[in-house]
Amino acid sequence: MSRKSPLPGEFDLIERYLAPLARGEKGAFGLKDDAAYLAPRAGNGFVITADAIVEGVHFLRTDPPDEIAQKALRVNLSDLAAKGARPRTYFMTTAWAGWIDERWIASFASGLAQDQKRFGVTLGGGDTVRTMGPLSISITAMGEIQQGTMLRRNGAVLGDDVWVTGTIGDAGLGLRLAIAPAGLVAAADRKYLLQRYRVPEPRVVFGQGLARLASAAVDVSDGLVADAGHVARQSGLALTLALDAIPTSAAAQRALAAGLAHVQDLVVAGDDYEILFTAPVAHRRRIEALAAKCSVRLSRIGSCQKGPADVFVLHEDGEPLQFAQTGFTHF
Amino acid sequence: MSRKSPLPGEFDLIERYLAPLARGEKGAFGLKDDAAYLAPRAGNGFVITADAIVEGVHFLRTDPPDEIAQKALRVNLSDLAAKGARPRTYFMTTAWAGWIDERWIASFASGLAQDQKRFGVTLGGGDTVRTMGPLSISITAMGEIQQGTMLRRNGAVLGDDVWVTGTIGDAGLGLRLAIAPAGLVAAADRKYLLQRYRVPEPRVVFGQGLARLASAAVDVSDGLVADAGHVARQSGLALTLALDAIPTSAAAQRALAAGLAHVQDLVVAGDDYEILFTAPVAHRRRIEALAAKCSVRLSRIGSCQKGPADVFVLHEDGEPLQFAQTGFTHF
Repeated sequence: MSRKSPLPGEFDLIERYLAPLARGEKGAFGLKDDAAYLAPRAGNGFVITADAIVEGVHFLRTDPPDEIAQKALRVNLSDLAAKGARPRTYFMTTAWAGWIDERWIASFASGLAQDQKRFGVTLGGGDTVRTMGPLSISITAMGEIQQGTMLRRNGAVLGDDVWVTGTIGDAGLGLRLAIAPAGLVAAADRKYLLQRYRVPEPRVVFGQGLARLASAAVDVSDGLVADAGHVARQSGLALTLALDAIPTSAAAQRALAAGLAHVQDLVVAGDDYEILFTAPVAHRRRIEALAAKCSVRLSRIGSCQKGPADVFVLHEDGEPLQFAQTGFTHF
Repeated sequence: MSRKSPLPGEFDLIERYLAPLARGEKGAFGLKDDAAYLAPRAGNGFVITADAIVEGVHFLRTDPPDEIAQKALRVNLSDLAAKGARPRTYFMTTAWAGWIDERWIASFASGLAQDQKRFGVTLGGGDTVRTMGPLSISITAMGEIQQGTMLRRNGAVLGDDVWVTGTIGDAGLGLRLAIAPAGLVAAADRKYLLQRYRVPEPRVVFGQGLARLASAAVDVSDGLVADAGHVARQSGLALTLALDAIPTSAAAQRALAAGLAHVQDLVVAGDDYEILFTAPVAHRRRIEALAAKCSVRLSRIGSCQKGPADVFVLHEDGEPLQFAQTGFTHF
C-alpha cells in the first residue's frame, strides 16, 4: 500500500529529523512508542491548545520551511503565553504535500530545533502522513501552570486597564504586501512587515509573569477588536479602547501613509499574536516593570467600563470607529 | 480576509456543533477560551497520542461523515488502549474542504457525540480551518493512567506469550474491496469488511485491564508484522508467530478463497486497530478471563524467543513466511 516517493522511508524520516527533537522529554520515549507519558509537576496542571496552519491560508508554499515550522509552533505558544503557562511539550501531525523533499524537511526540523531551544519546549509525539493537497501542520501544545492561576477571558473587572503587547496590524500589512506591487513601501519596511506575518513573536516569558498580575487575557490572533470582544463578552463589560493609544510600528505607519491600508484595517487584521489583557489599575507599575524586564513593548490602550459587553474603539473626539467586519474568520 | 461560503460563520459552527461535545470536561471551558486546563487525578499521569487522517488516504470523500469522525477519534483511542490508558479528552483540528456543507458537519459531530458517550471521552479544544485541498482531521488524544503502569513496546520478556485481539486483515481486505469489482465476494461479507476498514473497534476497556497483566503492547495499525516488529526490536527478542494461529474472520476467509488476497497479505495489511501484546505464561487464565469479560476475541499467536530481534511468521511445517513488504508506510 505504499507509494513511491523521492523521500526516505517514513521511519527513517522520523528517526533522522523528528526523534532528535524529542530528546528533552523523557516521556516521549524517543518517539519509539505509540504514545507519550506526561505528568505535571506537583501542584501544577496542563494548559492545552491546538492550532493548525495550512498552505495558501496561513503561509505560502514559497515561504522558508524553517519559518513555516516556527509559525506552526509559535501560534500555539502564543495561546499558552496568553494563559500564563510555561510551554513544555507539543504534539505535531504533518500532512506533507507531494512537492516536499528531504532538504525541505531538514530545514523544517531545524526551525523547530531553534524554537525548542529558545522557548523551552520539546516534541512529544505525532504523526506524519502524505497528502495530495496543500501542506498542513497541526500542533497541540501543552504548557504547565500552577493550579488555579491560568488566565481566562472572563476575568476582567469593572475599572481594569486594558493593555496590549507589541504592535498591532504588522502581520495584516505583511499579508497585503505579499500580493501588493513592489515599491509601494520601502524594501526594509516590506521585509519587516512580511517577517511579522511569517514568524510571530509569542510573548512566552512575559505571559508567565502576567499570571499573577492580569485579570483576563487573550492572544490577538483573529484581530485586536475580535479578540478584545471575547474578553468583553465573557466578562460582561464594555472594553473601551482609544484608537490613538493602539500601538503601531514605524513601518506600519509608513505603509498607512503610502495608502496600503487604513488605520481601521489594522485593528481588525489577524495574525498579530500579541497578548491583550486586563489588569487592576493598582498593578500598573508591576506590569510595566515586567514588560521592561522582558524587553516587551507594552501599551495601555483602554479600560473596562459599564455598558454593552462589546468593544468600542474611539477616535480622539470620542466618536466610535465603525467596522464592516471585526476580525479574521475562515468561513 | 474572510471567504464566502454556504456555511454559517466559524464561531456559529463551533457553538452549534463543537461546544456541545465539550460539555463533559470542565477544563474545556465550553470552548470559550484560548486553551483548556487539565490535571490528572492524584497518582496519575497522561498518556498522549496524535494521529491524523486524510481524505483519499485513510477514508474516501463518499464515506458517511459520522464514520469519518469516528475513525479519526478511534485510531487515537486505539493507541491509548494499547498503552492501558483510560481515555479522557481529545483536541481536534479539522481542515474542512470546500465541498463540506452544514449537514455534513452535523453528521460528523453526531458521530463524535456517539463515540464520546461510548468511550467516555470529551472534546477539549481545537481549531477549524478551511482548505482548498482534501479534508483532513488531526486528533491529539489524552488518557489517564496510574503512574508507572503504562504499557510500553519494550517490556517483552523471554518466554512470554504473544497475543492479539480480534481478527487480522479485515480492514486491508475492506480497502481492496472498495476498489474491487462487485460480486467478487458476497454482499454481506463486503459490507462487513468495508465496515472494519471504515470504523475500527478500539479495545478501550480490555486495554485498561491489560495494564497489570501484559509486559508489552502495541496497537496494530501498520500491519501485524510491522507492529510486532516494534515490540521485537525494542524488547530485543524474536517474536515467533504461528501463521495458523493468527485470527481471521469468516468473511476474510471467504474473501481469501475467492482470490481477493493471499493469507500473507493479511498479516502485513494496515488499519486493524487491534492490540498485540506479550504477557507472562502465568497470566494466561487471567488474560482469557479479561477477554471474556470484555467480549473481546483473543488469540494466542506465538511466543518471545531468543534470536534476532525481529518477527518470524511460521507455516505449519516451521518454514518462515517471506515478505516483500512488512507493513503500511506513507512513503
